[in-house]
Amino acid sequence: MAVGISTERKDALAKVSGRAKYTEDFAVKGMKHAVYVRSTIAHGRVVRINAEKAQALPGVRAVFTYADVPQIKFATAGHPYALDRAARDVEDRLLLTRDVRLEGDEVAIVVADSELIARRAARLVEVEYESYPPLVTPEAVLAAGARNIHPDGNIVGAHAYEVGGEVQQAEKEATIVVEGRYSTAMVQHCHLENHIAYAYMEDDGNIVVVSSTQIPHIARRIISEALDFPLGNIKVIKPYLGGGFGAKQDVVVEPMVAFLTRKLNGAPVQINLTREETMSCTRTRHPFHGHIRGGIDDHGVLQFIDLDVVSVTGAYASHGHAIALAGGAKTCAMYPRSVIRYNARTVYANMPSAGAMRAYGTPQVAFMVECLVEELARKAGIDPLEFRLRNVGRSGDINPLNKQVIINHGLKDCLDKGREIFQWDRKKIDYADKKSGSVRSGIGVACFSYASGTYPGNVEIAGCRLILNQDGSVHVHVGATEIGQGSDTAFAQMAAETTGVHYDQVKVISTQDTDYTPFDTGAYASRQTYVNGQAVYKASLEFRDRILSYAEEITGRVKEALTIAGDRIVYASHPQTTVISLRDLAIDSYYHKDRGGQITSEVSYKTRTNVPVFGCTFVALDVDIELCKVTIREILNVHDSGKIINPLMAAGQVHGGMSMSIGAALYEELLVDEVSGHIYNNNLLDYKLPTMTDMPDLDCAFVEIAEPTASYGQKALGEPPAISPAPAIRNAILDATGVAPTQLPMSPKSLFRLFRANGLL
Amino acid sequence: MAVGISTERKDALAKVSGRAKYTEDFAVKGMKHAVYVRSTIAHGRVVRINAEKAQALPGVRAVFTYADVPQIKFATAGHPYALDRAARDVEDRLLLTRDVRLEGDEVAIVVADSELIARRAARLVEVEYESYPPLVTPEAVLAAGARNIHPDGNIVGAHAYEVGGEVQQAEKEATIVVEGRYSTAMVQHCHLENHIAYAYMEDDGNIVVVSSTQIPHIARRIISEALDFPLGNIKVIKPYLGGGFGAKQDVVVEPMVAFLTRKLNGAPVQINLTREETMSCTRTRHPFHGHIRGGIDDHGVLQFIDLDVVSVTGAYASHGHAIALAGGAKTCAMYPRSVIRYNARTVYANMPSAGAMRAYGTPQVAFMVECLVEELARKAGIDPLEFRLRNVGRSGDINPLNKQVIINHGLKDCLDKGREIFQWDRKKIDYADKKSGSVRSGIGVACFSYASGTYPGNVEIAGCRLILNQDGSVHVHVGATEIGQGSDTAFAQMAAETTGVHYDQVKVISTQDTDYTPFDTGAYASRQTYVNGQAVYKASLEFRDRILSYAEEITGRVKEALTIAGDRIVYASHPQTTVISLRDLAIDSYYHKDRGGQITSEVSYKTRTNVPVFGCTFVALDVDIELCKVTIREILNVHDSGKIINPLMAAGQVHGGMSMSIGAALYEELLVDEVSGHIYNNNLLDYKLPTMTDMPDLDCAFVEIAEPTASYGQKALGEPPAISPAPAIRNAILDATGVAPTQLPMSPKSLFRLFRANGLL
Repeated sequence: MAVGISTERKDALAKVSGRAKYTEDFAVKGMKHAVYVRSTIAHGRVVRINAEKAQALPGVRAVFTYADVPQIKFATAGHPYALDRAARDVEDRLLLTRDVRLEGDEVAIVVADSELIARRAARLVEVEYESYPPLVTPEAVLAAGARNIHPDGNIVGAHAYEVGGEVQQAEKEATIVVEGRYSTAMVQHCHLENHIAYAYMEDDGNIVVVSSTQIPHIARRIISEALDFPLGNIKVIKPYLGGGFGAKQDVVVEPMVAFLTRKLNGAPVQINLTREETMSCTRTRHPFHGHIRGGIDDHGVLQFIDLDVVSVTGAYASHGHAIALAGGAKTCAMYPRSVIRYNARTVYANMPSAGAMRAYGTPQVAFMVECLVEELARKAGIDPLEFRLRNVGRSGDINPLNKQVIINHGLKDCLDKGREIFQWDRKKIDYADKKSGSVRSGIGVACFSYASGTYPGNVEIAGCRLILNQDGSVHVHVGATEIGQGSDTAFAQMAAETTGVHYDQVKVISTQDTDYTPFDTGAYASRQTYVNGQAVYKASLEFRDRILSYAEEITGRVKEALTIAGDRIVYASHPQTTVISLRDLAIDSYYHKDRGGQITSEVSYKTRTNVPVFGCTFVALDVDIELCKVTIREILNVHDSGKIINPLMAAGQVHGGMSMSIGAALYEELLVDEVSGHIYNNNLLDYKLPTMTDMPDLDCAFVEIAEPTASYGQKALGEPPAISPAPAIRNAILDATGVAPTQLPMSPKSLFRLFRANGLL
Repeated sequence: MAVGISTERKDALAKVSGRAKYTEDFAVKGMKHAVYVRSTIAHGRVVRINAEKAQALPGVRAVFTYADVPQIKFATAGHPYALDRAARDVEDRLLLTRDVRLEGDEVAIVVADSELIARRAARLVEVEYESYPPLVTPEAVLAAGARNIHPDGNIVGAHAYEVGGEVQQAEKEATIVVEGRYSTAMVQHCHLENHIAYAYMEDDGNIVVVSSTQIPHIARRIISEALDFPLGNIKVIKPYLGGGFGAKQDVVVEPMVAFLTRKLNGAPVQINLTREETMSCTRTRHPFHGHIRGGIDDHGVLQFIDLDVVSVTGAYASHGHAIALAGGAKTCAMYPRSVIRYNARTVYANMPSAGAMRAYGTPQVAFMVECLVEELARKAGIDPLEFRLRNVGRSGDINPLNKQVIINHGLKDCLDKGREIFQWDRKKIDYADKKSGSVRSGIGVACFSYASGTYPGNVEIAGCRLILNQDGSVHVHVGATEIGQGSDTAFAQMAAETTGVHYDQVKVISTQDTDYTPFDTGAYASRQTYVNGQAVYKASLEFRDRILSYAEEITGRVKEALTIAGDRIVYASHPQTTVISLRDLAIDSYYHKDRGGQITSEVSYKTRTNVPVFGCTFVALDVDIELCKVTIREILNVHDSGKIINPLMAAGQVHGGMSMSIGAALYEELLVDEVSGHIYNNNLLDYKLPTMTDMPDLDCAFVEIAEPTASYGQKALGEPPAISPAPAIRNAILDATGVAPTQLPMSPKSLFRLFRANGLL
């Protein structure tokens, strides 16, 4: 009825008409504006700070330094609280710091009547530093005798496992072994809306924080921890969000605005970061540096993958400790029949903090793995697509890492479907003679796997509350957060599907408010459709039953014979006959003096499954050797995300992810000076985020294999599209030029060096 | 544990510290301000309107006249929707009107960038009227050939009943019969915060209205009706409220701001009425004009009361049709053993609209009845207190009007308790010789009855949702609205009492938002403690059971052996032993990966009982004959409101009601010119609202008879304190001077006329 249809997005009109209200659109009278005083050096310590000139500026209300904040170290990663202490996030941050760990570190903050005054005043705060040599590269950070960036050392976390057998043994079976070193760049999410939040107090006991966050319920907890303030007395409100992509799965400015409003006697205080601050002082994607080896036997069967990576989390841990593990784990679902050894270290460095970013470490690892696989196929003389079809997992395989049966392994289906749509075999022939001259052409393919949530790593809890309004319309409250990805629309479709109420009559309340929104940990891990979908389903079933029970009470018709059809209760066997309209039933439930009551239903549900999703990218491109410029002619993502709730919205999600991966493949790189730690291009002019004019036509397709663990057969789709385009592009460049890039981005600058080194220029 | 204790008000700190946020404290960027163009005449019709000059003023965004609004007549009274069409409120109002019915009627509205510009522009709108003679007095309105103020005539409603026998028969038993004419003045609520609301659209489909309203859920429905806009797409938010007293049980500005934001493409638009507008263009208390007769037999037993009243509802019906009926009905519970005939007509007039005001018609009727009873006692030579003790109802009596048994009739208990505290008998002797000279002294008493809600006249529905937070604190959501009366505190006490959670850990979410707040019809009819108390109780029981069940799941202890004690789960039989802390249980429920879920409970409950409350006032006062000035020496209210939830807060409620009745007795009167319809004193300088310095010490006492139909033995208390002080004062003036006032207020001006007519001056 509603699921599987490209319904109009619930927020479409609000957003295209400009009526949707974002955090900055709200204001409280007397709003104060806070601006950080940021360090001008990347590594060191403040020896003196003088705020007198700043405080003297008219309109300045307060200046706080590292000496004024609670000495409570807290973690900012947006994870649910872990009952297991060892699994908790790294507490390495204070609200303001005396120890400087990156250029732009937060040593003080100015509060003033306007943002302009605050920015002016922030520049008037005089800070003297003791300066240390910045540690920017993994080598520098890990060097013997390197200064500790944090007291506990420079390694945030280390993970190692070897599954599916032993590499040493598998290597004996291998007749071809290849290895390589690969690295990926630090990139930034570049969400449209920068980090912004404001806070005020309702009285001594209650702080309200309005924030552009993906994780309002988690933000509430972290504010509570950072300030040692009771959680029940904090309320976080999330209006519409101008994108997050993981950067807002981190608690960046919320504890500070909460701190400031307390200090300012409850006055409203806002922090609205600039683009520059957002790009280099919030979160980035972890650059990975890896050494990978792999081997195949005589039959072209993958025997082992052996990967050793260093992930650079920058100045603060954020999600660092979790990302290297999560990023590596997905390999095991892609190639479950091979031995896989993974060794990862995550290190601090005097550069921007890396956090969660779409696909959470997987793009980095998948890039290396799919480069390796390409090399193996080529070395064995096997068509790269054929090679992957031979080696990827099959339904029924057991994931060697988590020992779970992969009920539906759709990767082969994706490759088959892509082969047909993309016309791989014909293109291979057509492109065979385009490998020379100044413009050379090639095709490439790459695969990925991802997960549908975080279980059993984290609790997967979701809530849904349904309300029947007096006019027969239905309100849906979910803790899961709409951050632009379309979750409100998907949940409305699910609720319509299961209750039988017409989609147009179902409204999802998009603003979360932790005071009343059912608990959910938020938008991350591509979890919402899969995890919150179960809660919506269960609440909808209960809600439908309550409506039909009340219909029986009013009309005397046996409820089991009834069903809901749009805006009417009808006989299930004779749906053209209206038993009672939903509106009349609702009115009766509210206003009949002696029976009824408001009809609602609330379910809080913990999902204890987590299923892998799969997909691949096919790309055809031209490489202008002299310009070192890549032009994508065709690019196609094929996804196994189970049944698709809303095809048009799913396509939009895929297009967005592809564009992000294309950006990382060809353009984007946040540049840090290895000597000074200076960040060169934390703005949208110098940071080469691709725009509409840079984008090729983006194609996508789905293999809709119903997932049996999910209420609507659905699996994750949010992050996955951002994984495989980059390695597919790399493999196509290799196909076109015979030269194998090993670093992202494959920008003209990088390709120039590569082509020159390989004699093409 | 928590009920029956004078806990600190939940909002005490927020309010005394100025941190509590009221409607005006919120703002949306780009707020526009709307100001009505109000008629300068009291009766007539607009013949021409020219907004050109207004529109030309810089900053003016729009001007709308009566020609621009939907031609949908709607009712503004804040009642629940009635399934019975005949019981619905009178639909006699348009958003703007061409037909002028009072001075200040709303013929156009200006929207501008600031309120200042809007007010300036409103004065620039040129309006030409055709003028008719204003009909202000009941005589003029009811005169043959009087012009119809509304198309259906000048009578809004009429009610007549005769219960407990027949007056004609009862009169035969009576040996003493007295009669009199009485009238009460038009007074105004004078809530601190004027009427204010603003609205904006989130998109084409959704209007948000933030309003200082007692009835957010009802306001939502009325906006929907007035604009023919889907109810499910309207959301009403109620912040803290600066008083209402019934004036905000009317939907005054909400439909207009909703209309304006739609017209202005979703821009935020605010209406913030001035004190002058609030006083004469919103709602007032109905002035009543009555003729009353009564008789007693030889034994001083009241035989009958025969009351004929005209209630003047002013320009629009508002609550008019309901108030005369409700006001009269209470007499039957006070004196259930007498024959009671009541005949009431409610009429329109060209003067301010009267609406709901604290005690809803009862003060007017009680004034007349308690004057009559006083006359009867005096004429029979019986002490007025003794007379009342003889004639008031007793527990077990049947209310002749609604045929319900009065389980606890506490009026005699109140009179007995008051007699003792006030030392009536001693004072009577002491005051016997103070009946001459320039300052004379007297004592007086008067009784009242009231109800605990509106059932069976209206549906009585209330909702409560409880949430266990991660820190073990509890959030309580109730649809019932805190409007300053302290309901949040009372509900928190109830939830603490029934769950066992410590009161300090229970927080009532004070802001209602119709998108999520459990449905409740709002703050009126003194219903909240009695009606919503049942929902809080039921939800708390369920919530407690869920917590204990989860404690069993975690700890393996039989839940029936457990109880909640403050912040711990303990053995019921051994409460010093902690089984698990509430916080640990909460953390487990949220974050355990394989069990639990957010613990919440929601109940929507319809109360189908409505119990009378009773009370009386004792007063001792001096009358300075030459100054015509009354000085209250002592005044005491005694109430039967069942068990008192919070004694200190209850006393505050009683003090407030007493001061309101004292104001009506001695000072307040909104003056309308009988010829022009001009309102003389719609401001706080000329309208003699008593201030702190005018108030005597106010005493109160309670007879706490547990009400068996209520979860905590509680009954209504909100409005009752405002009923009996005025007649008690009147009776004391009579006692002191021998002269019987028949009109309210008994201001110096009025007493001067009376004393002169009676030869005292």
